[in-house]
Amino acid sequence: MNSELIRTIEEMRRRLLLSRLQGRAIGLVPTMGALHAGHGALMERARAECNVVVVSIFVNPLQFDRRDDFEAYGVDLEKDRAFCQARGVDLVFAPTVEEMYPEPLRTFVEVEGVSEHLCGKFRPGHFRGVATVVTKLFHIVEPEKAYFGEKDAQQLAIIHRMVRDLNVPIEIVPVPIVREADGLALSSRNRRLTEAQRHAAPALYQALQVAAGQIRAGCRSAADVGNAAVAQLKKHPEMRVEYFEIVDARDMTPVDPIAGEVLVAAAIWLGDTRLIDNVRA
Amino acid sequence: MNSELIRTIEEMRRRLLLSRLQGRAIGLVPTMGALHAGHGALMERARAECNVVVVSIFVNPLQFDRRDDFEAYGVDLEKDRAFCQARGVDLVFAPTVEEMYPEPLRTFVEVEGVSEHLCGKFRPGHFRGVATVVTKLFHIVEPEKAYFGEKDAQQLAIIHRMVRDLNVPIEIVPVPIVREADGLALSSRNRRLTEAQRHAAPALYQALQVAAGQIRAGCRSAADVGNAAVAQLKKHPEMRVEYFEIVDARDMTPVDPIAGEVLVAAAIWLGDTRLIDNVRA
Repeated sequence: MNSELIRTIEEMRRRLLLSRLQGRAIGLVPTMGALHAGHGALMERARAECNVVVVSIFVNPLQFDRRDDFEAYGVDLEKDRAFCQARGVDLVFAPTVEEMYPEPLRTFVEVEGVSEHLCGKFRPGHFRGVATVVTKLFHIVEPEKAYFGEKDAQQLAIIHRMVRDLNVPIEIVPVPIVREADGLALSSRNRRLTEAQRHAAPALYQALQVAAGQIRAGCRSAADVGNAAVAQLKKHPEMRVEYFEIVDARDMTPVDPIAGEVLVAAAIWLGDTRLIDNVRA
Repeated sequence: MNSELIRTIEEMRRRLLLSRLQGRAIGLVPTMGALHAGHGALMERARAECNVVVVSIFVNPLQFDRRDDFEAYGVDLEKDRAFCQARGVDLVFAPTVEEMYPEPLRTFVEVEGVSEHLCGKFRPGHFRGVATVVTKLFHIVEPEKAYFGEKDAQQLAIIHRMVRDLNVPIEIVPVPIVREADGLALSSRNRRLTEAQRHAAPALYQALQVAAGQIRAGCRSAADVGNAAVAQLKKHPEMRVEYFEIVDARDMTPVDPIAGEVLVAAAIWLGDTRLIDNVRA
């Protein structure tokens, strides 16, 4: 069967009406296109758990804090649709910016606290844009389950919190990070790396693993663990560390001394490309 | 048939599951209890248009800017349930504060612009609290239609905007103001008026009508119309005018000179009791 491409909200709702009345379980995988095996894992999980799988492809201008990053986010819709089709996706929802934002937006969903640290500190308005567009997609598709990758750990924590706080009737399913053989987490931004940057990139995951190992071995000082990791990363002259933090796995606030289940999370720059990754400990 | 009283979110969802699968139209009337004929008009409209009518009764602490106002908002649940029953309501959803806010809320729905003038200027955080709790109720009940009174005109404009911006799959039905024989708009707060205050209260509607008449007669100066109305209201020594404004009927921003469809809206105080009212022109 073809993965049908749908461009309007009205058509999307119309196409799902019958499935809904038949009580068929709808699964949503929200993406910004430029699909890779990380997205593939989300689709496969949705395919295994739901009757109808919807993949949304929408590069949401609201969540970009930098114009150059938004513009570099080119989507090859035909390629992405073929990718979805190969994974048994039923419907590909790819609205235009005008379809999603026909008038200047006045309503925003804001998740306080969980949004403040890590990426939230460096990307003003980013998570407000994410929470708002995810709410719109939830209202358009009304899925029973929605699938999010653990690579965007803070985004996942924010969506979890939003769903609890606003009684959103949707189950959020987290899906583990997919990595290259050398450990680099899959990301649409990896394709922007030069050969030398791509060679250096796995150092991020290595540093996270070392830090997680120290925590599991009993080290309780977040400052010590973090400083050692940053020193390690700085050995790569082309790499700039934006943050390297140890946070509570649930509310994403820094913990020092380390206690309970934590996440070691970092963001680095290689040239103009920003990469994030995280490991639980 | 009895109007069944439901106290938990889980039970509410369970009770609506079958109706939803049968494709029966669910109508929601959100209230804060202390029901009067204004709420009755919402229920009757919902009863005429929907298969299942749900009335929520929840005094939402999030939308009160003054503690004394919140505390004066006593609900007699048995009396309110009997009121609902007499109007053929199927389900009365009356959750506790703990049921609606089991942990400190971190997620808020904010409608910018439409919230800024009129009541929004004098009740900080009020409309954020309204938009947030209405979103929660929408997600819990998932109605096809929701009914709101035109007395709370700014609230209605905010809900309309929120529904458009966030693609909420619910039709918002505005219901006209119900008035006493002397013109006073029905409100739960009217019962707090002393006899003398109750006697003075209809002057609010009279001033709004005079202003609307001047606008319909061709007067384009919002300042002139407003000043004349305020001067008229000030003749009642026990009455304090909080605002008297002429705003765009859609986005609730002041217009001067007057153009297009406008709303004449005012808030006054009689002792410790705040009353609002509005008229289209």
